[in-house]
Amino acid sequence: MLTDKQILRIPGPTPIPPSVQRAMAQPMIGHRGQSTSDMIRDIRPRLKRVFGTTQEVIILTGSGTAGLEAAVVNTVEPGEEVLVLVTGAFGERFSKICQSYSIQTHIFEVEWGLAVDPEAVKKFLLEHPEITVVFSTFCETSTGVLNPIKELAAAVKEVSTALIVVDGVSCVAGTETEMDNWGIDVVVTGSQKAFMLPAGLSFIAASERAWKKIEANPQPRFYLDLKKHRDNLLIDTTPFTPALSIMFGLQQVLQLLEEEGLDQVYKRHRLMKDMTRAAFGALDIPLLTLDKDASPTVTAAKPTDFDAEKFRKVMKEEFALEVAGGQGPLAKKIFRIGHMGYCSPADMLQAIAAIEIGLVKVGKKIELGKGVAAAQHVYLTEGEKTK
Amino acid sequence: MLTDKQILRIPGPTPIPPSVQRAMAQPMIGHRGQSTSDMIRDIRPRLKRVFGTTQEVIILTGSGTAGLEAAVVNTVEPGEEVLVLVTGAFGERFSKICQSYSIQTHIFEVEWGLAVDPEAVKKFLLEHPEITVVFSTFCETSTGVLNPIKELAAAVKEVSTALIVVDGVSCVAGTETEMDNWGIDVVVTGSQKAFMLPAGLSFIAASERAWKKIEANPQPRFYLDLKKHRDNLLIDTTPFTPALSIMFGLQQVLQLLEEEGLDQVYKRHRLMKDMTRAAFGALDIPLLTLDKDASPTVTAAKPTDFDAEKFRKVMKEEFALEVAGGQGPLAKKIFRIGHMGYCSPADMLQAIAAIEIGLVKVGKKIELGKGVAAAQHVYLTEGEKTK
Repeated sequence: MLTDKQILRIPGPTPIPPSVQRAMAQPMIGHRGQSTSDMIRDIRPRLKRVFGTTQEVIILTGSGTAGLEAAVVNTVEPGEEVLVLVTGAFGERFSKICQSYSIQTHIFEVEWGLAVDPEAVKKFLLEHPEITVVFSTFCETSTGVLNPIKELAAAVKEVSTALIVVDGVSCVAGTETEMDNWGIDVVVTGSQKAFMLPAGLSFIAASERAWKKIEANPQPRFYLDLKKHRDNLLIDTTPFTPALSIMFGLQQVLQLLEEEGLDQVYKRHRLMKDMTRAAFGALDIPLLTLDKDASPTVTAAKPTDFDAEKFRKVMKEEFALEVAGGQGPLAKKIFRIGHMGYCSPADMLQAIAAIEIGLVKVGKKIELGKGVAAAQHVYLTEGEKTK
Repeated sequence: MLTDKQILRIPGPTPIPPSVQRAMAQPMIGHRGQSTSDMIRDIRPRLKRVFGTTQEVIILTGSGTAGLEAAVVNTVEPGEEVLVLVTGAFGERFSKICQSYSIQTHIFEVEWGLAVDPEAVKKFLLEHPEITVVFSTFCETSTGVLNPIKELAAAVKEVSTALIVVDGVSCVAGTETEMDNWGIDVVVTGSQKAFMLPAGLSFIAASERAWKKIEANPQPRFYLDLKKHRDNLLIDTTPFTPALSIMFGLQQVLQLLEEEGLDQVYKRHRLMKDMTRAAFGALDIPLLTLDKDASPTVTAAKPTDFDAEKFRKVMKEEFALEVAGGQGPLAKKIFRIGHMGYCSPADMLQAIAAIEIGLVKVGKKIELGKGVAAAQHVYLTEGEKTK
């Protein structure tokens, strides 16, 4: 097989655009020098637009989980009770972080593959007025569900003053995120998904009322103290040495997002999602999620007539094409294909055409080209609007 | 459209593998230093294997045409008569070079799209015993024809002592090249095709009897004097400053070719050719060349029911996918798709799936997925053998 050729179609880390690689390769600079301040000053307003907020977006050097932990330790005061909505592995991640701080944590879990129901959460909160923070995943990477965050925030606000903290790691920059308009209090994301960067940076924004609580919160923290980060950010610097080369790349990523236009970026992700789902439908591969709950960044399939793990192995061997497996209760039962960030409709046509060959290799009876045709049809209809 | 994403499917320059880009990015070195000598010593035997020769392969800094001119001025003595076999634009290139040196040039032209017939050449040489050098294109990039060089050399030798000079620019490293076994006197190629490098280097090898003539040839030349180059190459250096960064890349390219294995590299190219031709056949797009004459590196199609130029424009606009147009008499009449070098069967599945959408956009009535299915079928049958 042609060496030095990988096709990375997992839901993150995602491929990195060449211009971003080049940007990251520029010579190192001092983190306390003028160049770094200039870079941070340039990044600040541009990052706010992606989050849909007027608040500062903290650039934390750490992976997504560091950002999630920062959200917990900054928003939850000792002795408070919180609610974690669990729709998959990353909802669980939130609850594990809370529990590691001995925070009294209510778990509201829905079957993996389903989205959280805002009305049910509202009902739960009415029965638990003591809850002060609600943690939810936006895109649940482990299932491909995009939780209805806008509706969830509205529902929570009807019955509670609890802060709404959202894990947007695998979808921010790939799907509409209107933090301010939707009334989200904290949004966290990472650099290695729709942001098209290597892992290493986490981005966190907090609402005005969240900042009030953060400033008064006696919960011990140092590196993850968001107030420290914001105070430094406001003067274009960071409290600790940042991952500068990933920040070089971030500037170029923002450039690419602005060149394409955020609305177009979101449309492209929806188009790739619809192409993928149409193809799997045509190939008779059951999807884990309902259309209404499907994330534009990752699609999970739950095969009934072939082995997901064997299929993934074949794809790697035949085409060096990597798709992800299942996690937790879905381990070995599903496979997940990422279509976010540096990924185009043409890339999905390639993935689907290759997948058809993989299906034949694992013994599934399919009509060659049928999945591709379904995706092409979606492109030709929806694609028009997407231009 | 996703910016910073191009799909280059022209018959050269071809995409450059990331590991080759990284190799070329290493710090510059002195061209008279030990590192350069070490690099040249490392490259020499590895390049010979790609040419199928025990002779030294000259590394000339210049594009393919510089290599073709070097072949002419080194092998043709003043006053000699030569034969140029013209099967397309690059056969013409040879004749133009000869004519610019006022060499009496016999042109044996066949209709563009056809291969040269060794028997007809034999007949021509019998009628022209004064011919001392026969110039032929191996892969004619402008038509996608792979001339039967092995058979041609055998035929020429039956009736003539003329040197056989071959332009292998768009196929060497993508198709079997057995210079010694086939009795080829000079093979020339360039760096920007199946060698997966930027343009800037030309590789030239000559047979023992060719070297005898080259050494005695009074034809004036300086930069292109192959003897000067060989004398320096034998002591691991070059007569003039070489394009060192492309040579850094060449080392990595040789590494990739050796990792995959040359036989496998050639099989992969044949597979991509067969997939492409099967797809075009299924989509009812007439091919310019016959199966027996088809090059494994480039395929030309001659559409009858849509405009080739409009189609190329659509492919660029929709997918940033570039295919080449026609040259000379075939201008605007054909389009050419390259499948050489850093290109995989999965890349061809992508190109074909995208092409189907392009066809719909230019108004051709096709059944979506049909071309992809034909290519997939070829992959699943022939692909097995190709593993």
